Amino acid sequence: MPGKLILVGAGPGDPELISVKGLKAIQQADIILYDALVHPELLENAGPEGENIYVGKRGGLRSVKQQLINEMIVEHALAGKNVVRLKGGDPFVFARGREEIDYAANFGIVSEIIPGISSVNLAGSYGIPLTVRGINESFWVVTATTSSGELSNDLTLAAQSSATVVILMGLRKIDRIARLFSKFRSADTPAVIISRGSHPDGKVIFGKVADISGKKEEAESPAMIIIGKAVSTHPDYNAIINSLIEN
Amino acid sequence: MPGKLILVGAGPGDPELISVKGLKAIQQADIILYDALVHPELLENAGPEGENIYVGKRGGLRSVKQQLINEMIVEHALAGKNVVRLKGGDPFVFARGREEIDYAANFGIVSEIIPGISSVNLAGSYGIPLTVRGINESFWVVTATTSSGELSNDLTLAAQSSATVVILMGLRKIDRIARLFSKFRSADTPAVIISRGSHPDGKVIFGKVADISGKKEEAESPAMIIIGKAVSTHPDYNAIINSLIEN
Repeated sequence: MPGKLILVGAGPGDPELISVKGLKAIQQADIILYDALVHPELLENAGPEGENIYVGKRGGLRSVKQQLINEMIVEHALAGKNVVRLKGGDPFVFARGREEIDYAANFGIVSEIIPGISSVNLAGSYGIPLTVRGINESFWVVTATTSSGELSNDLTLAAQSSATVVILMGLRKIDRIARLFSKFRSADTPAVIISRGSHPDGKVIFGKVADISGKKEEAESPAMIIIGKAVSTHPDYNAIINSLIEN
Repeated sequence: MPGKLILVGAGPGDPELISVKGLKAIQQADIILYDALVHPELLENAGPEGENIYVGKRGGLRSVKQQLINEMIVEHALAGKNVVRLKGGDPFVFARGREEIDYAANFGIVSEIIPGISSVNLAGSYGIPLTVRGINESFWVVTATTSSGELSNDLTLAAQSSATVVILMGLRKIDRIARLFSKFRSADTPAVIISRGSHPDGKVIFGKVADISGKKEEAESPAMIIIGKAVSTHPDYNAIINSLIEN
């Protein structure tokens, strides 16, 4: 009988932000296939017989191809092992969870999905709400990096809305993103970069659409950019912005 | 010395979907102020000295006013107790986390925020991705219920985009929502209601924009509505839709 495929969201970085259910799955796994953004401490929770295999992909670095990951999942599951596929954030938010499940299903392998705290929700842990009653009623999550390599068209639409816009994987394109929002919203629109969110060296870089791209050197990957009025409700926002103007 | 306010996201329903960090905060809390959507099992984890106080708000039912919740937080924290404010989902996604923190800060009370798995991420655990490579590059999360009681303007914009649109608290307005999307997208656009997601009686109700509002009686609160092409990548989508046409 084949083992199961369990997709587990590892959360946004801090190893204690995995779900209780996800942690249990790791503890009971025979094989863990894990990504670059997964905290090493999480892997220490694997059972004594467990084997951890790195299958990370990172921009610019050598990476394990998706097809190879699919094949590894199937190979181990068909050998009767329970495979945990451990992904940073949530396995269904800009991750290729669907592809891995479908590939495994072709071989009769059953999947289970344990969601994770998406990096999108990290904003909150830094005191930045995505929605504030009376200010806005929605947030729009866009990946800057599309399969074609172009800036997403959805980003142009998002810039025209009043939503808080959360841009994942956008650090390298921040100049173009900022220009887009300057065009469709005010250059004064509050913006923030969350650099390595929930990691001990994580930081929050506040600015405005007009100047945020000039601060990209202070940020490190993984980073997310958040643009919208709700950002300025952070209690330190005004003090930080004003001190920059005075200097 | 005042105690701390710790906002904890309880996750989308299943008590094991709380984060490890959130669970630890509950275990160490002196007082837990919890919402309607929090699973009762989570409260059993509170320490022996801990006190649990229900402060839930639900549409139509008697509810504890926000101002009273703010005051309770301050009262207990000033008495030196660590207060956990336990909220369904994530405390900063359409929740009033910001208001509670700001109110407490006025009394010198320090806050910490532990994010949770938002109900938005629940779609994934039912095999419904919010984004699929090659299909779409963004998702837009909108609350149907605004402070004015009107349908959010952002919903009209969202209907015009190609984003997967996730609508929270929209069950009572599903007729108007469906009409809006019929107007701006095709009536064939895939749609799904996730009813009581992650609870044992949770279910997924597939349809199209044209017929989804006719299925609202099958759903129970809390429910979310998801509209967009990505919904139809669920492996059972076509079989379910076709069987409905045949009957």
